[in-house]
Amino acid sequence: MSTDRVLKAGVLGATGTVGQRFIVLLAQNPMFSIHALGASERSAGKAYVLATKWKMSEQLPEEVRNVIVHPCAPEHFGGCDVIFSGLDASVAGDIEKAFFEADFAVFSNAKNYRMHPDVPLCVPVVNTDHYAVVAGQRQARRLKRGFIVTNSNCSTSGLVVPLKALQDRFGALQRVMVTTMQAVSGAGYPGVASLDILDNVVPLIPGEELKMEEEVLKILGGVAADGAACTPLTDLRVSATCNRVPVIDGHTECVSVEFAGTPPSIEEIKQCLREYTCEVQDLGCFSAPKHVIYVAEDEDRPQPRLDRNAGNGMSVTVGRIRKCPVFHVKFTLLVHNTVLGAAGASILNAEYAAKKGYI
Amino acid sequence: MSTDRVLKAGVLGATGTVGQRFIVLLAQNPMFSIHALGASERSAGKAYVLATKWKMSEQLPEEVRNVIVHPCAPEHFGGCDVIFSGLDASVAGDIEKAFFEADFAVFSNAKNYRMHPDVPLCVPVVNTDHYAVVAGQRQARRLKRGFIVTNSNCSTSGLVVPLKALQDRFGALQRVMVTTMQAVSGAGYPGVASLDILDNVVPLIPGEELKMEEEVLKILGGVAADGAACTPLTDLRVSATCNRVPVIDGHTECVSVEFAGTPPSIEEIKQCLREYTCEVQDLGCFSAPKHVIYVAEDEDRPQPRLDRNAGNGMSVTVGRIRKCPVFHVKFTLLVHNTVLGAAGASILNAEYAAKKGYI
Amino acid sequence: MSTDRVLKAGVLGATGTVGQRFIVLLAQNPMFSIHALGASERSAGKAYVLATKWKMSEQLPEEVRNVIVHPCAPEHFGGCDVIFSGLDASVAGDIEKAFFEADFAVFSNAKNYRMHPDVPLCVPVVNTDHYAVVAGQRQARRLKRGFIVTNSNCSTSGLVVPLKALQDRFGALQRVMVTTMQAVSGAGYPGVASLDILDNVVPLIPGEELKMEEEVLKILGGVAADGAACTPLTDLRVSATCNRVPVIDGHTECVSVEFAGTPPSIEEIKQCLREYTCEVQDLGCFSAPKHVIYVAEDEDRPQPRLDRNAGNGMSVTVGRIRKCPVFHVKFTLLVHNTVLGAAGASILNAEYAAKKGYI
Amino acid sequence: MSTDRVLKAGVLGATGTVGQRFIVLLAQNPMFSIHALGASERSAGKAYVLATKWKMSEQLPEEVRNVIVHPCAPEHFGGCDVIFSGLDASVAGDIEKAFFEADFAVFSNAKNYRMHPDVPLCVPVVNTDHYAVVAGQRQARRLKRGFIVTNSNCSTSGLVVPLKALQDRFGALQRVMVTTMQAVSGAGYPGVASLDILDNVVPLIPGEELKMEEEVLKILGGVAADGAACTPLTDLRVSATCNRVPVIDGHTECVSVEFAGTPPSIEEIKQCLREYTCEVQDLGCFSAPKHVIYVAEDEDRPQPRLDRNAGNGMSVTVGRIRKCPVFHVKFTLLVHNTVLGAAGASILNAEYAAKKGYI
Repeated sequence: MSTDRVLKAGVLGATGTVGQRFIVLLAQNPMFSIHALGASERSAGKAYVLATKWKMSEQLPEEVRNVIVHPCAPEHFGGCDVIFSGLDASVAGDIEKAFFEADFAVFSNAKNYRMHPDVPLCVPVVNTDHYAVVAGQRQARRLKRGFIVTNSNCSTSGLVVPLKALQDRFGALQRVMVTTMQAVSGAGYPGVASLDILDNVVPLIPGEELKMEEEVLKILGGVAADGAACTPLTDLRVSATCNRVPVIDGHTECVSVEFAGTPPSIEEIKQCLREYTCEVQDLGCFSAPKHVIYVAEDEDRPQPRLDRNAGNGMSVTVGRIRKCPVFHVKFTLLVHNTVLGAAGASILNAEYAAKKGYI
Repeated sequence: MSTDRVLKAGVLGATGTVGQRFIVLLAQNPMFSIHALGASERSAGKAYVLATKWKMSEQLPEEVRNVIVHPCAPEHFGGCDVIFSGLDASVAGDIEKAFFEADFAVFSNAKNYRMHPDVPLCVPVVNTDHYAVVAGQRQARRLKRGFIVTNSNCSTSGLVVPLKALQDRFGALQRVMVTTMQAVSGAGYPGVASLDILDNVVPLIPGEELKMEEEVLKILGGVAADGAACTPLTDLRVSATCNRVPVIDGHTECVSVEFAGTPPSIEEIKQCLREYTCEVQDLGCFSAPKHVIYVAEDEDRPQPRLDRNAGNGMSVTVGRIRKCPVFHVKFTLLVHNTVLGAAGASILNAEYAAKKGYI
Repeated sequence: MSTDRVLKAGVLGATGTVGQRFIVLLAQNPMFSIHALGASERSAGKAYVLATKWKMSEQLPEEVRNVIVHPCAPEHFGGCDVIFSGLDASVAGDIEKAFFEADFAVFSNAKNYRMHPDVPLCVPVVNTDHYAVVAGQRQARRLKRGFIVTNSNCSTSGLVVPLKALQDRFGALQRVMVTTMQAVSGAGYPGVASLDILDNVVPLIPGEELKMEEEVLKILGGVAADGAACTPLTDLRVSATCNRVPVIDGHTECVSVEFAGTPPSIEEIKQCLREYTCEVQDLGCFSAPKHVIYVAEDEDRPQPRLDRNAGNGMSVTVGRIRKCPVFHVKFTLLVHNTVLGAAGASILNAEYAAKKGYI
Repeated sequence: MSTDRVLKAGVLGATGTVGQRFIVLLAQNPMFSIHALGASERSAGKAYVLATKWKMSEQLPEEVRNVIVHPCAPEHFGGCDVIFSGLDASVAGDIEKAFFEADFAVFSNAKNYRMHPDVPLCVPVVNTDHYAVVAGQRQARRLKRGFIVTNSNCSTSGLVVPLKALQDRFGALQRVMVTTMQAVSGAGYPGVASLDILDNVVPLIPGEELKMEEEVLKILGGVAADGAACTPLTDLRVSATCNRVPVIDGHTECVSVEFAGTPPSIEEIKQCLREYTCEVQDLGCFSAPKHVIYVAEDEDRPQPRLDRNAGNGMSVTVGRIRKCPVFHVKFTLLVHNTVLGAAGASILNAEYAAKKGYI
């Protein structure tokens, strides 16, 4: 299809934290119009303004206020060109399946299908080449237009960006150690209790570490020659430790990397990160950031409050790039967990799909 | 000397954050009486209550309110059995030297003398055996009763405790990677600006990483057979990344450890940490914690707000002990940065010195 | 009864925020032993350590860890001399009734019976004279030993303390305007979502303002000559505005007061507050604070983090006492909302009841 | 002058918190180009990017990075059409005087000239009629083009907006009681120490209450018939209590109002606030907000994190409009303290001055 046409978007889980971010971003995006909203039975039948407890610092877009919320079933989303899912994993499995089997193009933030071999786990500034498995996915499931593309866990989204740049330029990575300090918005609403996070750090985010360790391997891996399946890396070992900190938005990650081969110099690494570009930029996608990676100038950056909105939340900021006394290089990165780490990635994935004719 | 006698204590830097903590802890400690207080020229001559901006949540001890603050010079500290220094590194070098050369027993929190080969860098629940160099220190500097003992950087204090337990039981460690999330009290007052830390993380604490990487080697190392010098480890490699987070007190540290030899099981590690004891406990020192290490039961612990006061701030809490996909074991620890990490360690060092006849 | 006997205490709602505070305080109190714990059906039958998610910074008392939690029904509390209720208002009505009708002495934090004319709404450092209605309460409800005494809303607890002192000394008050900044612990756990309170203020606490406006009148009022009922003030007008702020414990309240008669000077007011004493102090109750009111010396106090533990949380700190350009005097007060504002008040109420022979 | 011409702006105090906000706002404003930057001697001679520690979450505008910072003296600001001052009051008096006496149009955030009878204290959405005194100001000081216009204290800025609307519609106000919860950005950088504000409230902002109480009277007052002086209200009594809370940006204010005459209904008040418009809107000034006042729909609003950016920080959000048991009406308002409360007001004042030919 031509990308000149405005795509009609449906949003599943529209009243949740990720759903609200979808609405803010879609309302600013000329490629999409918000066509249908889905949420739980409790919200169904209500105007959006009444069904949701709006928690964004941006105002609720005028055109969405009175849209009637529907149950998350395909029959209510007729006419939608694309479905964005901000559903919780507890319900996303069945609902998303219903949609792609009903021949919708589904872009999901949930973890349920991320590790399926024929489902792209796509951070759009990193591995759009994984769309190659979509054809096989359709064939296997006998879909005509329908398919599902997932984006990664919010912490993974930030991590893979500099790792991809390094891997492309300097060859395989051998070991990666990452410790995160994650924002509370990543847990949704009401999510983290204030008694747990004021003057505090919570050193556990259930399931998060395993997700990061697995997803990195798939995203940095390739696709089988026949396009039938993604082929995760097998030689890279990743160890993730995930913490929750009193920050609203923006995940900070401290990373140590060991290269498989001769390590580059710190200067070469900085240059590599600065120069990294990707396909969605080349295609001129609306949500593609001008710079995929900002290399912070000041040595006390990145900081979530100051850097999370870099590139409208679609850029990753990397700082403190220095030698690691144990591995080869250490750095600290920042990713906006609900933009590049969630809704923004889905939307850019959809823009890419449209540009490439998948929609 | 007999430890039955109450020791007269002088506190240098008494109006600062560490100094205030010294005063709170000494006021509760039957082994010491507060005899003299020292601060900058600006405070000298004033009653303590007027010279200080009291920031502790404990009330200012009644007996200290009207103590006159003196300049930090030995002539004002006559009669003191022990000198505690909470001075900033920018002035500690000369002042502490003046005191130990004037034959005072000095217990310092500053970094200035930590790495001197004949100065114990002593975390009192870890390496009191380093006091062996005190005799040589006195001899070399022709001191009769005077000497200086330092305690470590606040982050180091927490890290070395489980590492020491593991090294003692399972042999040498090969590589350690640690990422910290440090409380603002570690930066003193006014210290970290609120605009820098509300809804934010600062990924840099100048000088801190190097301190950790060096100090660990000295503390976990030994003493030369002739007692002339400390002999830091040379085979252990440590990589530290230090962050500031919006927490008042309590440093959280995420640690990965690789053993030089066959790694123990997770259960063996837990047991080792639970069973760890040390000399200051055996001696019945007043400030020695009942448990040096608490192994957290809940998998979302330790948390600074909930665990920093374990053992009155003198215990280290260790949790999330699990296999590391890259090294052998990962865990998260918590240390009260101004108690075991600063004033509390100095005081326990002095209790030890008294028990062992150094004072 | 003699108060030498240790009273056996039952705690209803033992796993909640107020319940946990009860347990911490009771474990430190020589007048009570914890005899039985009650919680919802979901917790019943479990050891306390397994039934609760412990959120106090004090360690879970050893003697409570393995106490089996029961449903909140009188048959499980046989042998208890006193029942403390930290139940939520949604269930407190029926359960507390069942207990006092089963002839238990019930001390409740819930709002359900506070405004009943024959139920004391007692802030123990303010209006223990309201116990006079207990006899009538028993008679009317045909109870032998059973009765119920409530304590006030946490914000009310702080406000009435200086108001009572002023009223006693300077006569009736005419108008009071109060704006609160309340801690998140007042909302229980999980309570306030972190997304609602980090870098934020919530200007509404549902129902709170009305509670304050009503309860003050009852507490500062008297008891009918025949002891049959409390007689709230009718001439005082109170306007309350309640806000939630990012503070863990400690409610701060900005108060303006207009006296009915000639207003005292600021110095007279300070002296009056400093000199205020009450019956529980005279009786030597264990939890009675040494000073009911601390008048802050520094003009930037009280502050919740620094002053909430004054008098072990049982004192109120008052500062910034100054002329009001609109009314007569303005000041700012601080009360520990879960100690004097909740569990601590209940316990002191029970100590008083025991001393006076009600139990 | 025609407003089609882009005005060349100089910024004094350009490296401070208000100065950085000026730069962010001016860079987005088509009416102005940043022509010269002034700061302390320490910064003078450096490129702006090196002289400042940039703390805004917006990126440093590219065109400002390499502008050389000058000392704050008129000779360095030749060619500037307008001077914006974000100077601290400790230096603003002399420097601003030097500028307006050198015939510059000065728009100041400092308090130094606010209460001068012939200096407009102008919240641009409230009292642009006070510009009438500018002619006399010039005459008295023998200035040709120079003059000074001040904007109010940040807390005053929010308060006067609804008060002006009410006074215009319902006649004189008699008494106003206001309690504020103010953001840390109001204290500049480094400003409030993190140890003072994490898990805390500071109940004092030195000098702030008096400023509010005085400034409101001047702003809501008029101008003498001969235009020679502002004529503050004399019959309105205002009592302000100011607190600092852990919020980055946005002052929340709880207000009670008593009308001199018959009070309007709550519905009439809501309608009045919603309908309020002002001259800068009529003139089509670029920075004029679409709505001067937003009346919040939800009863738990306004909240600083969610509402501070309403109208790009130039609108005031008012919520919780309800009867006051003591006065006539209570409400809670929110103002962005560094936009409408500081730099944004100055800029809109300058836009107004340009439209009206003062520049």
